[in-house]
Amino acid sequence: MITWKNLDKLTSYQELTKTDRVDLTKVMTGENGADRVKNYSVPMADGLVYNYAAKQVDENVLEALEKLAGEAELAKKFEALYNGEVINTGENRLVLHHMTRGQLGEAVTADGVDKRTFYVEQQQRIADFANKVHAGEITNAAGEKFTTVVQIGIGGSDLGPRAMYLALENWAKKNGTFKMEAKFISNVDPDDAAAVLDSIDVAHSIFVLVSKSGTTLETLTNESFVKDALKNAGLDASKHMIAVTSETSPLAKSDDYLAAFFMDDYIGGRFSSTSAVGGAVLSLAFGPEVFAQFLDGAAEEDKLSMNADVRKNPEMLDALIGVYERNVLGYPSTAVLPYSQALSRFPAHLQQLDMESNGKSVNRFGEPVDYPTGPVIFGEPGTNGQHSFYQLLHQGTDIVPLQFVGFKNNQMGVDVVIQDSTSQQKLCANVAAQIVAFACGKADENRNKNFEGGRPSSIIIGESVSPKTLGALLAHFENKIMFQGFLWTVNSFDQEGVQLGKVLAKRVLAHETDGALKVFSDLLNI
Amino acid sequence: MITWKNLDKLTSYQELTKTDRVDLTKVMTGENGADRVKNYSVPMADGLVYNYAAKQVDENVLEALEKLAGEAELAKKFEALYNGEVINTGENRLVLHHMTRGQLGEAVTADGVDKRTFYVEQQQRIADFANKVHAGEITNAAGEKFTTVVQIGIGGSDLGPRAMYLALENWAKKNGTFKMEAKFISNVDPDDAAAVLDSIDVAHSIFVLVSKSGTTLETLTNESFVKDALKNAGLDASKHMIAVTSETSPLAKSDDYLAAFFMDDYIGGRFSSTSAVGGAVLSLAFGPEVFAQFLDGAAEEDKLSMNADVRKNPEMLDALIGVYERNVLGYPSTAVLPYSQALSRFPAHLQQLDMESNGKSVNRFGEPVDYPTGPVIFGEPGTNGQHSFYQLLHQGTDIVPLQFVGFKNNQMGVDVVIQDSTSQQKLCANVAAQIVAFACGKADENRNKNFEGGRPSSIIIGESVSPKTLGALLAHFENKIMFQGFLWTVNSFDQEGVQLGKVLAKRVLAHETDGALKVFSDLLNI
Repeated sequence: MITWKNLDKLTSYQELTKTDRVDLTKVMTGENGADRVKNYSVPMADGLVYNYAAKQVDENVLEALEKLAGEAELAKKFEALYNGEVINTGENRLVLHHMTRGQLGEAVTADGVDKRTFYVEQQQRIADFANKVHAGEITNAAGEKFTTVVQIGIGGSDLGPRAMYLALENWAKKNGTFKMEAKFISNVDPDDAAAVLDSIDVAHSIFVLVSKSGTTLETLTNESFVKDALKNAGLDASKHMIAVTSETSPLAKSDDYLAAFFMDDYIGGRFSSTSAVGGAVLSLAFGPEVFAQFLDGAAEEDKLSMNADVRKNPEMLDALIGVYERNVLGYPSTAVLPYSQALSRFPAHLQQLDMESNGKSVNRFGEPVDYPTGPVIFGEPGTNGQHSFYQLLHQGTDIVPLQFVGFKNNQMGVDVVIQDSTSQQKLCANVAAQIVAFACGKADENRNKNFEGGRPSSIIIGESVSPKTLGALLAHFENKIMFQGFLWTVNSFDQEGVQLGKVLAKRVLAHETDGALKVFSDLLNI
Repeated sequence: MITWKNLDKLTSYQELTKTDRVDLTKVMTGENGADRVKNYSVPMADGLVYNYAAKQVDENVLEALEKLAGEAELAKKFEALYNGEVINTGENRLVLHHMTRGQLGEAVTADGVDKRTFYVEQQQRIADFANKVHAGEITNAAGEKFTTVVQIGIGGSDLGPRAMYLALENWAKKNGTFKMEAKFISNVDPDDAAAVLDSIDVAHSIFVLVSKSGTTLETLTNESFVKDALKNAGLDASKHMIAVTSETSPLAKSDDYLAAFFMDDYIGGRFSSTSAVGGAVLSLAFGPEVFAQFLDGAAEEDKLSMNADVRKNPEMLDALIGVYERNVLGYPSTAVLPYSQALSRFPAHLQQLDMESNGKSVNRFGEPVDYPTGPVIFGEPGTNGQHSFYQLLHQGTDIVPLQFVGFKNNQMGVDVVIQDSTSQQKLCANVAAQIVAFACGKADENRNKNFEGGRPSSIIIGESVSPKTLGALLAHFENKIMFQGFLWTVNSFDQEGVQLGKVLAKRVLAHETDGALKVFSDLLNI
């Protein structure tokens, strides 16, 4: 039996608050700093390492975090989750996204079927479909091959798959597995769909409609937009569309689609990149083998997350340090800074993953919590961010903890030597330099040029952004966020906070408003 | 003579801290809420309005803010700035970006020339050049028209122009002024340049190299990358490149470029969208008339910023409310949420504009300040954000002030009716609903479904995203940030915080490292 206690009720948390603060400028200087970089490092899947040398921790803090992990039963809670307990209590649901990429524990039966078998079947059905599309066995009505895939979805049906597509697009082109271009339509702003439709050849495009419930208003609206465009082009829409949905949704058995692939209620939208939600578009774009490698990377990382030894579990450690920064050190936001153009939209995906999961004020029993939960998450790829918001990160009045990601090699293998170094070396030199600049600072008599330092960061280092690496990276953050939800005792798998806006928007459209809402509606000409 | 005092030394600031807090859930309900929406509204340029009904202010707070504006001499400081005082004291420079779009006050002479004349001349030279490119008078060596323009720049030479291009791309296509596609290369990650080069027809591309100093490492590296590509294609690079730089830079009189257009040291990178930095790429993409309209919108808004009456000055009011939220109410971040797909990268530009300008810990005299300065800024377009991080905004433990932007009409004029409303109506209904949901909340016995409300937001409402509207919107935020810098007594126009990273990166590339930096360099294979 696992027990759930609010963070501030744990003895180990109270002890953690009493540990001495670490002076980063001091410990990261000289040989001590070098030793920390060597020692404060945990292997991840696929050759990645999580290095936390520049985080505000030392042996004292780490021991306190280990105790906290034990008392909070983090490993046991993860075990309960992957063995099929109803962890999403608010919606009375299991939480099974790990099972889309592997079987971590016992077989889990739900809805009368073995869930691992179900997810594997869906992956296989998608692979068969994608192979047939690539082979020209499934074509448009004129018997011509599809050349573009367009995902229609919003939130988790958009941000994750889009970030993963961008991360692997150039890798696939370089490695000869690029099958077709992918585009994404998400916003209910009609200009989004109109611009995407203007940019493609609709006669050779296949559309993936993604909605678990089959009732997401934005997505159904954009589907109609697309159907109009197909009709106007004299095409039969049902020959150009597939659905990714739950088996119980109205889309599941509709003749409007060439095929329907299934997810279920145990996969939250923001955790659905490894399910059919990511599977369909990524398999069509890059081939099913690439998607399978992506799943392998995630599965390998998931296994590391099972380790009860904090120092060998990168996700648990990252989660604990994050909670220490948020609750003990009082830092309100966190920046994610991948030094890779391929990961340009990875921070936007993590922003949803983190803020929608842990941006909660009540615990899993519906009681208000007395401590801060999920932080604000933001980020842009480096080196671009250096020329944007790093000024505040270095010299602003608030401290913002940082999560760097860096790779030894680029994806496309083209480079240029300027001033005796390649672009890739410059990229890597910058991320190394930033970590030390943030941690150690630099005194200057001119206070305007003074850097106080003491600004904590971690870095994940890998060889290059490949499908497997990307899967491991995604699983790292998914599991980190899950562990933080356990520590804060919140339900990381519902999102009741998005409901009120939907209700009021419907009221506006029905013209059933009064007071401020009516005047705003008038101002906006609704 | 203007006087500079730290915010916490102003009597009116101390009075402001003592005003009663406004209960938004209360004042925004019923007829009182409706009255606030009608009254708390300021006209902006080009038919825009700034509405602050859902901000945590009332007559008491507003009066205190008016006093603060007076004591802090905001209007006088702006006057000093546009009349050519050395406001950027750290770098001993004037601050003249307003003059790229109009003459607000006295003639300003610097470097021996009238600066307004100088900026107008550059704009005219760019217009002539762009018209010749469009007319086929300036072509590639084979006498063929250029079809693509590629901007090479980073930070302010990238984010602003890119956001503006995306904002107007579909408008220009719809309105028949679209001349050529624009692409952007910024990151030193070689995959950025490689991917852009793979996506274009280099033989028909013209490249705009943007670097004020002519020494930005990322930009020069990417220039070499592009020159290699041109050479490999058997092309003469000097027939495909123009430069935007200062007259004193090594690029200014080089034979490597078809032409050079000039900015100067009085235009900070992040404030350079209305200078040649934005002018070259936007005039080539959309025609010089469209760029001129963009400048007109900014100039019109600048004039409103001159008003010493806070209630009639949208920028000053927005700035004051932001400082009240940051320093008195203690909110650490702000989200920018445009309900328009065209503004998809506008928040990324504002992130630089705001965080690089006001993320400072010392005042303009180099003395540490005892209060928080610039907040963390982040955002994504609505409705996408609703399905991402709004959960935290509604129900998280921290309050995040919001800045909405919404438009009555979309740009492309294509729409679809689903469930009795158009997509555009749904988009507008959502933003209206969100404002009220955040402000008023909704009680629920199930605490998990409870919305506390009291979460403040403002909204700027306009007809549609046109060049003029966009200029006004940009000037609004530029001037808001300027006024906040005045209130915090920081120098909003330098960025010393970016220097240390550059110095250390050079050391890494020269292999002159020890300690932690050496080990990180080894881990990254540099």
